[in-house]
Amino acid sequence: MEFFPAPLEKLTEQFARLPGIGGKSAQRLAFYILSLPEHDARAFADAILDAKKNITLCPVCRNFTAGGLCPICASDKRDASVICVVADPRDVAAMERGHEYQGRYHVLHGVISPMNHVGPDDLDIKSLLSRVSAGGIREIIMATNPDTEGEATALYLARLLKPFGVRVTRLAYGIPVGGHLEFADDATLTRALQGRRELDII
Amino acid sequence: MEFFPAPLEKLTEQFARLPGIGGKSAQRLAFYILSLPEHDARAFADAILDAKKNITLCPVCRNFTAGGLCPICASDKRDASVICVVADPRDVAAMERGHEYQGRYHVLHGVISPMNHVGPDDLDIKSLLSRVSAGGIREIIMATNPDTEGEATALYLARLLKPFGVRVTRLAYGIPVGGHLEFADDATLTRALQGRRELDII
Repeated sequence: MEFFPAPLEKLTEQFARLPGIGGKSAQRLAFYILSLPEHDARAFADAILDAKKNITLCPVCRNFTAGGLCPICASDKRDASVICVVADPRDVAAMERGHEYQGRYHVLHGVISPMNHVGPDDLDIKSLLSRVSAGGIREIIMATNPDTEGEATALYLARLLKPFGVRVTRLAYGIPVGGHLEFADDATLTRALQGRRELDII
Repeated sequence: MEFFPAPLEKLTEQFARLPGIGGKSAQRLAFYILSLPEHDARAFADAILDAKKNITLCPVCRNFTAGGLCPICASDKRDASVICVVADPRDVAAMERGHEYQGRYHVLHGVISPMNHVGPDDLDIKSLLSRVSAGGIREIIMATNPDTEGEATALYLARLLKPFGVRVTRLAYGIPVGGHLEFADDATLTRALQGRRELDII
């Protein structure tokens, strides 16, 4: 595309490298940047550099933090005896949106995936084991995704954790709230049936 | 969302300001930036600043350029006597993808839109008039979008250009190539019928 100057082509290429952004969207975004006031474009660039420079992993739970402990590990309002194990920092965000969970987290930064050459050693598992071996942990909730790789990772960890004698649980399977039975797949319906509970009559 | 550090929240907000990027996508993109090597994140930030700093508007056609005339206005292979008037630099890209047009362009940077408080004075119309009054222009093709505002802008310009005695044309309306009659709207079908042409039998 010789009809756009090189700096614009380069910016478009940068946007096109982002996940889920195709060529046309990338062009649209690059044009949007050009339409911004100088100050706003600089703020965008600075936000990238600032995030990249100042965000580290929490030494305890491996979630993102701006240096030192993450806010959840630093808070004494959170139950330190329960650890929710998730694959990705985004899953922490998802769990927190529910406002139900009061314990702490451990972020694996991936799941075991032989297809993608990701083995246990590529995940933040050692730091989880040292947290558990340090004692004081009552329960570990496996909150990896309910897909093959998430399941395999949860099972692998459950086996690793067994010698510590800690209770290891898994998030419940079932039909999603607001979902329709009609559209639920067989596996989900089977799990929902297996996991059925007494109705609380108040 | 107190559970993510401020620099990450800020970067997410920056992405969320981009057109067509919602909250969840913005988070995904911000996390992707964090996963990049330092060098790549810097290249992204630099591309933004570089594009913003070095890209100007072509003094003749108002398309984006990296200083001086744009490649199309600078090329002596392009027919200087035909001007294709478009609303946006992206439309230049779209026209060029067709490899059919051999003339030059004029970018209005918008269309007349009373709803959005955009009047003729907000568009690059004066520079178009001065190009035409300088002489040597044989035809002006109105290639604004075939919607209400694009139509109004094309008509407005056609009236402005009439005193110059230049031929003013409009892109053809009709069913898109590869489209289905079944899905064409009434207005398009009517225009396609009105614009019907003899079949060239070879």
